[in-house]
Amino acid sequence: MKINPENHSTHISQKFNDELEEIRSQLLEMGGMVEQQVKDAVQSLLDGDTRLAKEVRAKDQQVNHLQLEIDEFCTQILARRQPAASDLRLVLVVIRATADLERIGDEASKVARATLKLAEEGASPRGYIEVRHLGNHVRQMVQDALNAFARFDSAKALEVLREDENVDLEYRSATRALITFMMEDPRAISQVMSIMWVLRSLERVGDHASNLAEYVIYLVEGQDVRYAELAQIEAAIAQRKQATQASD
Amino acid sequence: MKINPENHSTHISQKFNDELEEIRSQLLEMGGMVEQQVKDAVQSLLDGDTRLAKEVRAKDQQVNHLQLEIDEFCTQILARRQPAASDLRLVLVVIRATADLERIGDEASKVARATLKLAEEGASPRGYIEVRHLGNHVRQMVQDALNAFARFDSAKALEVLREDENVDLEYRSATRALITFMMEDPRAISQVMSIMWVLRSLERVGDHASNLAEYVIYLVEGQDVRYAELAQIEAAIAQRKQATQASD
Repeated sequence: MKINPENHSTHISQKFNDELEEIRSQLLEMGGMVEQQVKDAVQSLLDGDTRLAKEVRAKDQQVNHLQLEIDEFCTQILARRQPAASDLRLVLVVIRATADLERIGDEASKVARATLKLAEEGASPRGYIEVRHLGNHVRQMVQDALNAFARFDSAKALEVLREDENVDLEYRSATRALITFMMEDPRAISQVMSIMWVLRSLERVGDHASNLAEYVIYLVEGQDVRYAELAQIEAAIAQRKQATQASD
Repeated sequence: MKINPENHSTHISQKFNDELEEIRSQLLEMGGMVEQQVKDAVQSLLDGDTRLAKEVRAKDQQVNHLQLEIDEFCTQILARRQPAASDLRLVLVVIRATADLERIGDEASKVARATLKLAEEGASPRGYIEVRHLGNHVRQMVQDALNAFARFDSAKALEVLREDENVDLEYRSATRALITFMMEDPRAISQVMSIMWVLRSLERVGDHASNLAEYVIYLVEGQDVRYAELAQIEAAIAQRKQATQASD
């Protein structure tokens, strides 16, 4: 059985179907928005582009607003439609996912704030290679997690979880490099600290992308895999696949 | 009208009432647990107590487990009881709140990890006063937010939101002090960075306590106040009070 976003559950009411489809597409819209925010925030830092940084900061309000709107819509669906089984899971996942997307937006906003601070101080680029790499990496994770959600694709979601381990390694190596910069030039400590916080924000973006991926697995596999080891998750997905093939 | 936890809504089924009471008390139990985790983690750092730090790290698993349990129970209530109005709000708030409590537990665990790292390096206390102050402050915020939840007390919740502004000021002043330490003694940079991350974790604990406070206001006032300015929230609470008094 392949789970298909178009008919992931059967219920009589076409209107109810439309509503579920609507929160799904709203979540993807919000996701696309924060993915762009991460991209723009990192770009603003690399280019010292304060105009772009201010745009990112301003747009964060829209992201917050969208979260409240989607959450309110989900609450209404729960109250009026009283969904069960996979429909209920979908609504709950959307509520959880908006919280993660909103926090990704927050982290992008923090990166943009660093752009403004560094520009004000007339700082010279230091640690920017690390920011570019980690930034690309976690933005890709957000994109992949959203694609996995759009396609109800738990294998893709699993890849995102695996990727997070690489991001953690990359993050740790980047912070070590920055500590070395600080030791070599103590006058630059304050400036390098700003980059340190940027790296931390990007690492957090990766964590939130992983949360999104875990929700996709919960949706598709029906198992809450938060705090499970990667190997356990892989086994659970493989097991379901086998069971599905056997019943085909 | 004073909202009373014992009868915050009326429904026929005593069993349903018991279930709502049960998730409320489970949330408070989880809250008490993470509050203790924050306290122990900070204490382990101040005393260089690696045994206590390891305990905090081990206990984080229990916190995670409790979150999954409560979430699962909430999902079952939604599926079976199809709650509406204030009951639905309560269940949704509990689901959101467990996520914040779990993250508070994560931050405590990070602080405990810093204890172990610093003990290994035989580090001397630096920035510990800042950690103690901020640690006490945010632990108090968590406690107050939980009390506000236990009593459905939006005025108390509002105090927590106000307190978060002080925590942010305190955090910024502490990080400035630490940057000065690093400049004065570049050899200690790596060690001071560990304390910097600890301060960041504690500041995040304050943010999560604020989220809890916002949920309490949503529960009691029926208004989602995330992203609202403090002044707006105060006005909304005052308005409801007036309306309630007029109708008494």
